[in-house]
Amino acid sequence: MSKGKLFILAGPSGAGKATLVHALLAADAKVQLSISFTTRAPREGEQNGREYHFVSREEFLAMAGRGEFLEHAEVHGNLYGTSQKWISDAMARGQDILLEIDVQGAQQVRRIFDGAVGVFILPPSAEILEQRLRNRGTDSEEAIVKRLANAREEIAHVGEFDYVIVNEHIDEAVRDIIGVVRAERLRFLAQAERHNALIASLQG
Amino acid sequence: MSKGKLFILAGPSGAGKATLVHALLAADAKVQLSISFTTRAPREGEQNGREYHFVSREEFLAMAGRGEFLEHAEVHGNLYGTSQKWISDAMARGQDILLEIDVQGAQQVRRIFDGAVGVFILPPSAEILEQRLRNRGTDSEEAIVKRLANAREEIAHVGEFDYVIVNEHIDEAVRDIIGVVRAERLRFLAQAERHNALIASLQG
Repeated sequence: MSKGKLFILAGPSGAGKATLVHALLAADAKVQLSISFTTRAPREGEQNGREYHFVSREEFLAMAGRGEFLEHAEVHGNLYGTSQKWISDAMARGQDILLEIDVQGAQQVRRIFDGAVGVFILPPSAEILEQRLRNRGTDSEEAIVKRLANAREEIAHVGEFDYVIVNEHIDEAVRDIIGVVRAERLRFLAQAERHNALIASLQG
Repeated sequence: MSKGKLFILAGPSGAGKATLVHALLAADAKVQLSISFTTRAPREGEQNGREYHFVSREEFLAMAGRGEFLEHAEVHGNLYGTSQKWISDAMARGQDILLEIDVQGAQQVRRIFDGAVGVFILPPSAEILEQRLRNRGTDSEEAIVKRLANAREEIAHVGEFDYVIVNEHIDEAVRDIIGVVRAERLRFLAQAERHNALIASLQG
């Protein structure tokens, strides 16, 4: 069994990451989205292990105590965390994992998961980014200015990523991310591990 | 204008390289096959600059004298050569180039073209490789044994390549090579060059 790969997807809010994530998961059954752990109660229609791993506050704190989280945070009184152990276990079973994360989180993940593949999503223009951020709701001008500043800060880290996808036409961007995942599985080291018996037998 | 990429395709005879080359060229208009120079006369239906660049013996020898060939050889009294200059010029115009070559040629090309991407094609099993080599014609047992030995020698160099495609199901292998080409165009350095104005404006 060959080990799975970890794909990190980052980019400013407004770049269209969520759409790409859903399209990739729909197109490639071998990729699974990293599922966070949370202490909040499941909402109507949510399934344990699908949207989140729902755990009690005691369980969550025990996991944190064992250092199992790549990152965790408390939001509105509920704890949320990305389990390093869950990702490692899934990859050991040969599962490819997709992790949508901010650039700070991405740096931390890369330090822990050496072979992680970083993909950065860019909007097609500054105007479209601003338009998308403005269309998100009825935010104050102050909130929008802050979002734009955050986006600029994220984009300054684009050089830390292996691949860059400009999300201008969504169909093309979806093909791009599918291509990246497919190509990464074909890298020599992954293939040598997966097909070692074949390569040995071909060399007679 | 961003520079084109050079893709080197290698693998033992019987791996199915030619089929993959044709499928990739049909699927991706931005990839062009490297066209060799030759001194032989064009055959019926052949066009200068499509199958070959047809040149006189004098022109060919002058090119060789200027060190323009990556490799050249004489076969049945005709000269054939891969022009380094033609590849460099095409890449400078933003053209991606595909070069089908043996492992020795690939080593030489990688020394000259630093960013060349190597893709190695493997047959799905030793049995199928032998069967394909036997089905190629009415060769003597000796000739087949020699081809198998050559194939084993080529396969020993698989570790020199960036990507490995196992050509078991041709449709999958075609998707693989299309994915590799697509992904390589999305690498940070290529994208930073292609979209430098966008990235600068987004960091505004």
